[in-house]
Amino acid sequence: MKLRSSPASPFGRKVKIGAVLCGLHLDVVPADTSDPADSLRGQNPLGKIPVLLRDEGAPIYDSRVILDYLDALAGGGVIIPAAGEPRYAVLTALALADGISDAALLQVYEGRYRAAQERSANWVDHQAGKVARGLKALEASPPRKAPVSGAADAAEIALACALGYLDLRFAGAWRAGHPALVAWLDAFAARVPAFEATRPAV
Amino acid sequence: MKLRSSPASPFGRKVKIGAVLCGLHLDVVPADTSDPADSLRGQNPLGKIPVLLRDEGAPIYDSRVILDYLDALAGGGVIIPAAGEPRYAVLTALALADGISDAALLQVYEGRYRAAQERSANWVDHQAGKVARGLKALEASPPRKAPVSGAADAAEIALACALGYLDLRFAGAWRAGHPALVAWLDAFAARVPAFEATRPAV
Repeated sequence: MKLRSSPASPFGRKVKIGAVLCGLHLDVVPADTSDPADSLRGQNPLGKIPVLLRDEGAPIYDSRVILDYLDALAGGGVIIPAAGEPRYAVLTALALADGISDAALLQVYEGRYRAAQERSANWVDHQAGKVARGLKALEASPPRKAPVSGAADAAEIALACALGYLDLRFAGAWRAGHPALVAWLDAFAARVPAFEATRPAV
Repeated sequence: MKLRSSPASPFGRKVKIGAVLCGLHLDVVPADTSDPADSLRGQNPLGKIPVLLRDEGAPIYDSRVILDYLDALAGGGVIIPAAGEPRYAVLTALALADGISDAALLQVYEGRYRAAQERSANWVDHQAGKVARGLKALEASPPRKAPVSGAADAAEIALACALGYLDLRFAGAWRAGHPALVAWLDAFAARVPAFEATRPAV
């Protein structure tokens, strides 16, 4: 299977790590979301990454759907609990981590898509508030691995990728106020070698 | 169970319709995402709606996780196919519909969070392109109901809510170029009375 992604995408990195934990190989085919001529927009009309291309069948997106698919291919319950409270704890924590990445990306896009005079401190503050509140909640209650057969659950993977993205784009400023999360991330990286293996070059 | 939402949210509307199709009752408790004093940010640090509050257990979000939960409560396979190609067709089409709503919301937020001189035609065009490409793909291949026991599947519900949001905020301009989707939405509304019952007041 092929994965359309880019090195810096926290959502693409999440899928790459998830695939490793599911024992599946993905060939990464780089995608340029800003290039209208990239075949990506034919694979996902939204023009977003990641997208999973299979030998047969339609493309699969977004990253959460791909994780669900990979987990099912691996037999189920590898990175996502199949049912019950553990399932909804993981899926909600996954949504929180992805929401942190989304809010971080919107701050980066503020610089990428806009002229200087079009940037809004109010909007950036609004997104930064989502990141700050998410990190505060997670610092008070760092993730604990759900009952899955893989080395980590999907919410942990998503959080590691969100924090990795903050390291990449915001110079790791989050680390100062969140010692429990820093310790959690160090332990995650030791437990899941695919995290370092997918670290984007600065 | 209680649902934190607002009348205009396409994601909240999706959950309301999904609950009806799952035979479940939700008490809607209005939430104001722009009010820091609203208890919402304690329920979801991202400050986003919808959030599902249960009598016991942690809050559940986002809308896709809530739909998964409601479907499971109803026995499974009611609005989301349990496995196989139908599952991934629905989940990917759900991601596409939600992506259209997201891109529409970002255009609305451009007016809500920014002073006039901070608005960017480039950014708005970027989001409008996502909506346009999504609608073009769906016009060429309107949804067909997946093999689920409910009156509609989750992707259909999400698309109807995305189109309803375009009607609400963009005066239905999408209708001109998409006759197959207009016909599809009319048929959906006839099949799923909860769609009209959840229409936000203008």
